[in-house]
Amino acid sequence: MMGCKLVLVLTLWTVSTEAFPKGAQMKKCHLSKYKSLPPRELETFKNVKDRFEDIMLLSDRKCNTKIFHRNWEVKELSVHDRMILVKEKLHLVIDVLENFEDPRLSELLVRPLEILRHIREDLKICTSHQPNAHRRSGRLTSWLHKFHAAKKMETPGCLEASVILNLFRLLNNDLKCAAYMESCT
Amino acid sequence: MMGCKLVLVLTLWTVSTEAFPKGAQMKKCHLSKYKSLPPRELETFKNVKDRFEDIMLLSDRKCNTKIFHRNWEVKELSVHDRMILVKEKLHLVIDVLENFEDPRLSELLVRPLEILRHIREDLKICTSHQPNAHRRSGRLTSWLHKFHAAKKMETPGCLEASVILNLFRLLNNDLKCAAYMESCT
Repeated sequence: MMGCKLVLVLTLWTVSTEAFPKGAQMKKCHLSKYKSLPPRELETFKNVKDRFEDIMLLSDRKCNTKIFHRNWEVKELSVHDRMILVKEKLHLVIDVLENFEDPRLSELLVRPLEILRHIREDLKICTSHQPNAHRRSGRLTSWLHKFHAAKKMETPGCLEASVILNLFRLLNNDLKCAAYMESCT
Repeated sequence: MMGCKLVLVLTLWTVSTEAFPKGAQMKKCHLSKYKSLPPRELETFKNVKDRFEDIMLLSDRKCNTKIFHRNWEVKELSVHDRMILVKEKLHLVIDVLENFEDPRLSELLVRPLEILRHIREDLKICTSHQPNAHRRSGRLTSWLHKFHAAKKMETPGCLEASVILNLFRLLNNDLKCAAYMESCT
């Protein structure tokens, strides 16, 4: 009986060290849950967008560029590049929402921000799996370059509006496509 | 047989003249179809809103006031007042969309404008039924006063954004409540 237990423990140990090459330090990449977000979670983002639309026109929101604009689909990127794209977008979205100027949105933003930070953590794990083996496409590199330049150039009013008007594209399009991995075509 | 037909015709004539006091000139008020708009029709409005959100931040859209703002619910109005409210909103919405400055939206606006004009025609029939017997509430009168003043004061950029961001509130909230008549509570 004791021998059986030892064999079982050793077998499980072998399997687990094979699945995670660096042992306990390496967390597993779990994105499949983002193939579709629960409706009650999406509702919290909808509430933010509705409330924002109600007040957004009272401030200057004009932008010089379309910050998130691209003339290609996220599915045209490699799976790894999609994750980088979503992660970079998330950095900006979280930063802008955390520093939102209008206090009327603060309470509504609590749950969406929790969800977004959770997604970002998951993406960090996924993109850290093969940091060196991966080579970014020219398409993504060029987009990131314009994106980071636009971020620095635009006003807070523009950034807030751009981020909130883009929330559902990020969640229902870009993140979903990253979660579907090779099946997003 | 001839006698029977005559009785039937006379009966129908009596019923119809009772239902429509002014005979053939008076059209019937049909709003119940607007309790819920077909998803494929709502989709055409969604396409306009998505496309607009994509370009809206490149122009100055700042408003001095919230044109459609009110601090009461449409269900708090009488059925007739609700129809007046929706009709007045529709006048502005149709006018703004017909004169939309950005040609990138023209094609997308064709079907939504057809639907909106159709709703406006139906509302005209409904509100013309008892024009004199009806007395507008102070609440509606005051709202209309501010609404018409704001319309004149705001820029085309603000009006376009206000109208498009308010489309779904108009269709899914105000119009729906008018269509439900006494059942909207």
